[in-house]
Amino acid sequence: VAPIRVLVLGTGQMGSAIARLLLDKPGLQLAGACGKRPERAGTDLGLAIGLGRHLGLPIHADLETAVSASRPQVAIQATCSRLLDAAGEIETLVQRGVHVVSIAEEMAYPACASAPLAERLHRLAVAHGVSVIGTGINPGFVLDVLVVTLSAVCAEVDSITATRVNDLAPYGPTVLRSQGVGLMPEAFREGLARGSVTGHIGFEQSIHMIADGLGCEIERIDQTREPIVSRVHRATPYVTVEPGHVAGCRHTAVGYRRGAPFITLDHPQQVCPELEGVATGDAIEIRGRPGVRLSGSPEIPGGAGTAALAVNVIPRVLAAPPGLHTMLDLPVPAAMLGDTGGVGRRASACATS
Amino acid sequence: VAPIRVLVLGTGQMGSAIARLLLDKPGLQLAGACGKRPERAGTDLGLAIGLGRHLGLPIHADLETAVSASRPQVAIQATCSRLLDAAGEIETLVQRGVHVVSIAEEMAYPACASAPLAERLHRLAVAHGVSVIGTGINPGFVLDVLVVTLSAVCAEVDSITATRVNDLAPYGPTVLRSQGVGLMPEAFREGLARGSVTGHIGFEQSIHMIADGLGCEIERIDQTREPIVSRVHRATPYVTVEPGHVAGCRHTAVGYRRGAPFITLDHPQQVCPELEGVATGDAIEIRGRPGVRLSGSPEIPGGAGTAALAVNVIPRVLAAPPGLHTMLDLPVPAAMLGDTGGVGRRASACATS
Repeated sequence: VAPIRVLVLGTGQMGSAIARLLLDKPGLQLAGACGKRPERAGTDLGLAIGLGRHLGLPIHADLETAVSASRPQVAIQATCSRLLDAAGEIETLVQRGVHVVSIAEEMAYPACASAPLAERLHRLAVAHGVSVIGTGINPGFVLDVLVVTLSAVCAEVDSITATRVNDLAPYGPTVLRSQGVGLMPEAFREGLARGSVTGHIGFEQSIHMIADGLGCEIERIDQTREPIVSRVHRATPYVTVEPGHVAGCRHTAVGYRRGAPFITLDHPQQVCPELEGVATGDAIEIRGRPGVRLSGSPEIPGGAGTAALAVNVIPRVLAAPPGLHTMLDLPVPAAMLGDTGGVGRRASACATS
Repeated sequence: VAPIRVLVLGTGQMGSAIARLLLDKPGLQLAGACGKRPERAGTDLGLAIGLGRHLGLPIHADLETAVSASRPQVAIQATCSRLLDAAGEIETLVQRGVHVVSIAEEMAYPACASAPLAERLHRLAVAHGVSVIGTGINPGFVLDVLVVTLSAVCAEVDSITATRVNDLAPYGPTVLRSQGVGLMPEAFREGLARGSVTGHIGFEQSIHMIADGLGCEIERIDQTREPIVSRVHRATPYVTVEPGHVAGCRHTAVGYRRGAPFITLDHPQQVCPELEGVATGDAIEIRGRPGVRLSGSPEIPGGAGTAALAVNVIPRVLAAPPGLHTMLDLPVPAAMLGDTGGVGRRASACATS
């Protein structure tokens, strides 16, 4: 079987990580890359993603050119967070008959940002016979898909709480700015009002994904964003936080069902939480019949986890019916080790032992 | 929309629990029950399952009669553990155009017990336009589906260990006998040799399900069953264990890939483990890039969890293409709360908020 040809959109931290994974994965072939930064156009992809060797694949600045040159079956989009920013590239790819995996946060549940635009993407994908999906660690997995999966053992669900405490120290300036890291608390609040501090992007997506997975109605979502004010000195390669300054953003969302809190998602993001004795980790608690409680520390790493999900979902996207999907529409996600071609065999074909 | 009519096969502990859940679930209707015990035939189902009131539904001893009387769209089979014992009832149901959910352990991955029989069930289901699936807490969820789901965040998987420490105190004589509870250690070993002590049924199913989900080859599976010899007095309504006698069975299975242990499943089952300071719980560790570790205590309860899974999977079974499926073939499982009809809506239909 010929390997699946994959085009990567974006050559930043995430696009580079995804490209490196594709090089290692049996059954998949890194077919090319598209990057917007004009100074990168023509650079060899191997050098751009830190391989230290040439791959013979120039980075294309223009998406149409990249598609023509790399003839991909599927593209992974790692260029943006918002549906509005993602839609143009996705439409171009779909019109060229290319399946799309996007790690744009709002693509995890696209209709939350714009139902008409999601509907348009769905119709376009159906018309061109390809599938489009959003995925990522959060939204797309820890605070939604995993919660839905665990709920399957519950006959009744009274309420859900999921918490993800992570460390922003590995992240670059764009992410740090979006969480207000390094600001004074007043500047953090001004940034929230102005929109330069956003907190987490994805709570509406996760809450609607859980609610739709469980088949329940959420009446409203309340969100709060509070500065995590540091009591100690914290430093990363990109930012220094003095005592009294902001180390990150505690962002919480509550989805209401039948007038009461039903889904509570808590995601405090900060640099170096361990310096104040805060352990990172993921925790899901479903109160119900029976209840379920699972947790792990440290947190599933966001960058590496998102890159893996984007690659691992490829066989399922290619096997899905044409259209715009979410992770809940596809079969149970899985690592793709590639010994046997990547997708689960039929039950009836299971080997005896 | 008319509710989905459900027939329950089996009126023991599991069948009764499933029947009670069906009564509470919007969108589903308990349409009848079939029970083999002749003394129960004609008994009202409401009394048999401990409701304390009549439901106007007699228990049928004959499956054909039960199907004719209850006209079900789907049946839940809670009568046995082995594929060979399950297949006859499933064939009858399929030939009558009834979808089937089975909690028989070997139905979680039917081809492990008999690939030809699984293939026959698959062809029969396709011919009659219905779907058949096996589910349950274990096999079917904690030590396989959940492991596969968590692996989706891994680019590479070096090895997997999953442990389920549970308490058999809630279980009746059949389960206790199968784990050798109350025996002397020598009698336990004789029971293993004779087949009256089985340990856990489902390790081959779970290991093949994980391997097929991840797309890797397992060369062989080694299993060990050791008596858990009690140092203290333990008692349940059905059994008393004196010091020096067997409190349960520590059953472990190791699946080998490329000559090395790849999947290790550890499932010590005993009555009252807390009396020797052993905490129950579920734990999954995937060593890989990145690694994942999640755990919870106490364990997800087996009986209640299996009953919930059997009911919650119904909408997905009805929506699946005809054939024999595993939990890995269907979309992400979920609790079915029923506010909106039970199955996830399309991504493009997600409400804005």
